[in-house]
Amino acid sequence: MIQMTLIQIDNYGPWTVTPAPRAEADLQILQSELYADLQRQFAAKGGLVFFTRFDNMLAITNNVDMEDHRRIQKSIGNRYPITVSMGVAAAETPYEAQRDATAALQNYGGAQSEERKEVLAIDGLVNKEDSFVQIAHIDINGITDSLTDIIPAYDTSFIVNRVQHFLMKKLIEKGSLVFFIGGDNFMSPCNGLSPEGLLKIVEEIEDETNIALKAGIGKAPTAEKAANLADLALEEIRGGVTYDLVHVMNKK
Amino acid sequence: MIQMTLIQIDNYGPWTVTPAPRAEADLQILQSELYADLQRQFAAKGGLVFFTRFDNMLAITNNVDMEDHRRIQKSIGNRYPITVSMGVAAAETPYEAQRDATAALQNYGGAQSEERKEVLAIDGLVNKEDSFVQIAHIDINGITDSLTDIIPAYDTSFIVNRVQHFLMKKLIEKGSLVFFIGGDNFMSPCNGLSPEGLLKIVEEIEDETNIALKAGIGKAPTAEKAANLADLALEEIRGGVTYDLVHVMNKK
Amino acid sequence: MIQMTLIQIDNYGPWTVTPAPRAEADLQILQSELYADLQRQFAAKGGLVFFTRFDNMLAITNNVDMEDHRRIQKSIGNRYPITVSMGVAAAETPYEAQRDATAALQNYGGAQSEERKEVLAIDGLVNKEDSFVQIAHIDINGITDSLTDIIPAYDTSFIVNRVQHFLMKKLIEKGSLVFFIGGDNFMSPCNGLSPEGLLKIVEEIEDETNIALKAGIGKAPTAEKAANLADLALEEIRGGVTYDLVHVMNKK
Amino acid sequence: MIQMTLIQIDNYGPWTVTPAPRAEADLQILQSELYADLQRQFAAKGGLVFFTRFDNMLAITNNVDMEDHRRIQKSIGNRYPITVSMGVAAAETPYEAQRDATAALQNYGGAQSEERKEVLAIDGLVNKEDSFVQIAHIDINGITDSLTDIIPAYDTSFIVNRVQHFLMKKLIEKGSLVFFIGGDNFMSPCNGLSPEGLLKIVEEIEDETNIALKAGIGKAPTAEKAANLADLALEEIRGGVTYDLVHVMNKK
Ligand SMILES: Nc1nc2c(ncn2[C@@H]2O[C@H](COP(=O)(O)OP(=O)(O)OP(=O)(O)O)[C@@H](O)[C@H]2O)c(=O)[nH]1
Ligand SMILES: Nc1nc2c(ncn2[C@@H]2O[C@H](COP(=O)(O)OP(=O)(O)OP(=O)(O)O)[C@@H](O)[C@H]2O)c(=O)[nH]1
Ligand SMILES: Nc1nc2c(ncn2[C@@H]2O[C@H](COP(=O)(O)OP(=O)(O)OP(=O)(O)O)[C@@H](O)[C@H]2O)c(=O)[nH]1
Ligand SMILES: Nc1nc2c(ncn2[C@@H]2O[C@H](COP(=O)(O)OP(=O)(O)OP(=O)(O)O)[C@@H](O)[C@H]2O)c(=O)[nH]1
Ligand SMILES: [Ca+2]
Ligand SMILES: [Ca+2]
Ligand SMILES: [Ca+2]
Ligand SMILES: [Ca+2]
Repeated sequence: MIQMTLIQIDNYGPWTVTPAPRAEADLQILQSELYADLQRQFAAKGGLVFFTRFDNMLAITNNVDMEDHRRIQKSIGNRYPITVSMGVAAAETPYEAQRDATAALQNYGGAQSEERKEVLAIDGLVNKEDSFVQIAHIDINGITDSLTDIIPAYDTSFIVNRVQHFLMKKLIEKGSLVFFIGGDNFMSPCNGLSPEGLLKIVEEIEDETNIALKAGIGKAPTAEKAANLADLALEEIRGGVTYDLVHVMNKK
Repeated sequence: MIQMTLIQIDNYGPWTVTPAPRAEADLQILQSELYADLQRQFAAKGGLVFFTRFDNMLAITNNVDMEDHRRIQKSIGNRYPITVSMGVAAAETPYEAQRDATAALQNYGGAQSEERKEVLAIDGLVNKEDSFVQIAHIDINGITDSLTDIIPAYDTSFIVNRVQHFLMKKLIEKGSLVFFIGGDNFMSPCNGLSPEGLLKIVEEIEDETNIALKAGIGKAPTAEKAANLADLALEEIRGGVTYDLVHVMNKK
Repeated sequence: MIQMTLIQIDNYGPWTVTPAPRAEADLQILQSELYADLQRQFAAKGGLVFFTRFDNMLAITNNVDMEDHRRIQKSIGNRYPITVSMGVAAAETPYEAQRDATAALQNYGGAQSEERKEVLAIDGLVNKEDSFVQIAHIDINGITDSLTDIIPAYDTSFIVNRVQHFLMKKLIEKGSLVFFIGGDNFMSPCNGLSPEGLLKIVEEIEDETNIALKAGIGKAPTAEKAANLADLALEEIRGGVTYDLVHVMNKK
Repeated sequence: MIQMTLIQIDNYGPWTVTPAPRAEADLQILQSELYADLQRQFAAKGGLVFFTRFDNMLAITNNVDMEDHRRIQKSIGNRYPITVSMGVAAAETPYEAQRDATAALQNYGGAQSEERKEVLAIDGLVNKEDSFVQIAHIDINGITDSLTDIIPAYDTSFIVNRVQHFLMKKLIEKGSLVFFIGGDNFMSPCNGLSPEGLLKIVEEIEDETNIALKAGIGKAPTAEKAANLADLALEEIRGGVTYDLVHVMNKK
């Protein structure tokens, strides 16, 4: 089972314009430092956070317990002008886990409620024996030579965004999520997805967009280890160890 | 004229996997802190950076001169394990500015060249009299009540991404760019775009996606001031001062 | 027993002047961000880091195991232009623990050795049952009214430094350490020191410098908890719960 | 003339214990990130900040005007749970400048006043023609071989603190300030101090403490450039270009 946490900034929309709109540069710094900060704290326990919308972040949190969540929440409250609420749930697929985590938090009030503050809403936590995370690290082939070094930077980012859009659309049907992690890279929490299932999607996207992808899949008890195995699988594709476009590595 | 800078991490792809793939959490922290850091430094001169692909960032840099660019570049080189190269250009539209900034940098070698390091490639800088930035701050109406508080967090982010995709596709034809800035917000450097032109796009997107948008437009000599005016225009729409979905504010 | 870790930047002196002296502002940012970063990571496991010399930091690390140290070390190596080595030891007093931690690291080569890199030298770790940390939080009485609001800022900081110097001199004889933690505050890892011993020192300092101090003492299995209890003890003195200038709180 | 700014966290003492004492690790992170943040922003204009007490920081701010101060103040207020007030003054010596900057701020209320918030109290600013900063970068000879690599880390830091104490005591009489900048390094804003005056102090300290120092002095219109020249002067001593223990470099 995969455990996911929704991290939501409390009443953030109104705050950004009170008493007057705050400088966008400051909001950008605040958001990205908050994300980096949460990442560091969840990573210390083997978790992995995705920036998602920045005001709403989704994280894989197998091995991160209730006390850890509380400590992180308090630490943010002590150092930022805003606070965060969290919802946590565990399920067979990432889609279900984030859905239940969201619902758990929604129960306590809206994102712009003035009362809801530093809520920790736990629908369920994974225990050690059932902890299982499957992650696919999906990457565009040779983006540097074919795009980055040739066409304008914005056009490349437009293509990357388009690929993301296709990936999201196709993977959500399998209960899998897709997050952009920078460059030409996507990370997909995908418990329950078969390598063949992913390969089919990769092939469809190549047909529709003319962009060739490759994907390493890792399976392990924590996001940290699963992501690392996915990276190693990707390197084996890059290194020619395998001809498959989707390659799996399990924790030995 | 708008001045744009492309900031590119030198030879970053290979670095992320040398000697072995680096922990994804560390890369995420590195990327978002680098972005926050650049933002703070460009903002000190009235500029505004967009995270774009994180390994390639685009910035509006009117009022940021050559010496400023150099100082920022050196400061990053002193504090990170990586270095950055930059391309700078000025043009009538944001699309052209980023295109020429990219080309200026590409001239010096590829993003994964082992020789190219800390290059500053200046195609052109805007002088004070010609400095002009137009920014639209585009926002989804009532996302909190209609999406965030009701449906799963991932589904909301999927819709936001879809809106971004439509915006990018339509605005690029006008020479305007679109960047996601978190939440349900987009910022569009859009010199040359008329309010009517933007309104038409907003209406088309509502037709196609059923998502209602609003947009504040600001015009000023720097990105900082233009963004601030765009925010104020957006607040006037929110406050009911105007019934228009696209509202403009000029620097007095 | 208290466990302490010495964190030393590898070959830092030469790096600061290669190829030419790096901007002091950049070094200051690098050093304080590195410190904040380490603090966050050690704190996630109940540890506490003191900035000490910035290029050499001492930390109380009960409950932080070998794997944690490794992860932190790697994470720093992935995100900074420098690497860190560490020495770890456990002993009855903080003085002995840092002495043995230092010696363990010194065995592997000098601070400016070109070969020594990312060493983790473990002399010993505390096990759960023996884990015990005693911390005194020492504070100047009424510094705001008597100094900060009246005399020049530099003069106040001079007095604070003088108090620190006296505290260090007197406490080292008891096997206790003293670190400046900002404002008018000092934190003293002080396993083995009696409240009466500390009171005597506080009284001597008042005689010699005319500065009145108070101190809360906390005792617990981790630095985090001991520091928290010390803070609570200090608040009880502030609140008039006790007339003693040195007040102790134990973990219930 | 040298321009100095006192940066003071508003009502910080009470905040640290409201509603209950905040985790010391969080306060340490907050303080050092705030310092790094201010450093980056002042450095963008050629200024240099010293951490001093962390809740009260002194900065050399020649070339940083009123608008810059305001922007920095607002930017901090947008991203931290606390706000900062500032006092600014210019004078012939650093001591006088910080004294007048402190007095300017004290006029507006105490450091723990509940009313005083985000005050900018300007006693005076330096104009371009009169802008002059003299900085000495003072360093211990061969600390690595003689202390760091041989004795316990705490003992070395005790000696460094002792040297700082002597330096502060002797330099304040000349109207010069001394700040610890990490390692075995001190930076002294010292307009008006002659090289011979500093040499005498260096020699006295060697007599009294047996610690040999060297010092590079830089003179320039901004702190950034003066510090850089001081570093270069220090390197010339290290490189054997001069036998003097105090060596001066002027801006060409
Ligand atoms: N977040 C993240 N980004 C990565 C990683 N590896 C590469 N990238 C990003 O991807 C960009 C492109 O690098 P590569 O994928 O190595 O380059 P490429 O030209 O596509 O080459 P191939 O993928 O080997 O065909 C880099 O600039 C990084 O931004 C990773 O492990 N994590
Ligand atoms: N970057 C950025 N994000 C903002 C800004 N204002 C709001 N947001 C984001 O947008 C999210 C939604 O806030 P709002 O747009 O105020 O909420 P809403 O429910 O859509 O309400 P209306 O837009 O007033 O209809 C917030 O959580 C923020 O993430 C801004 O100025 N800059
Ligand atoms: N690091 C740290 N600093 C603190 C803490 N509490 C207070 N300070 C610092 O100490 C400074 C002075 O605050 P106080 O000690 O409350 O003020 P005071 O005037 O001395 O009042 P009393 O100590 O109550 O007599 C603050 O500005 C902070 O910098 C704490 O828990 N940790
Ligand atoms: N802040 C700052 N610290 C420095 C600088 N240069 C060196 N250091 C610090 O000083 C420490 C000791 O380095 P050095 O002074 O080069 O070493 P040393 O053994 O004393 O050698 P010499 O000074 O050449 O006799 C380093 O670990 C750094 O912490 C600098 O320019 N700025
Ligand atoms: Ca790729
Ligand atoms: Ca909205
Ligand atoms: Ca006090
Ligand atoms: Ca030295």
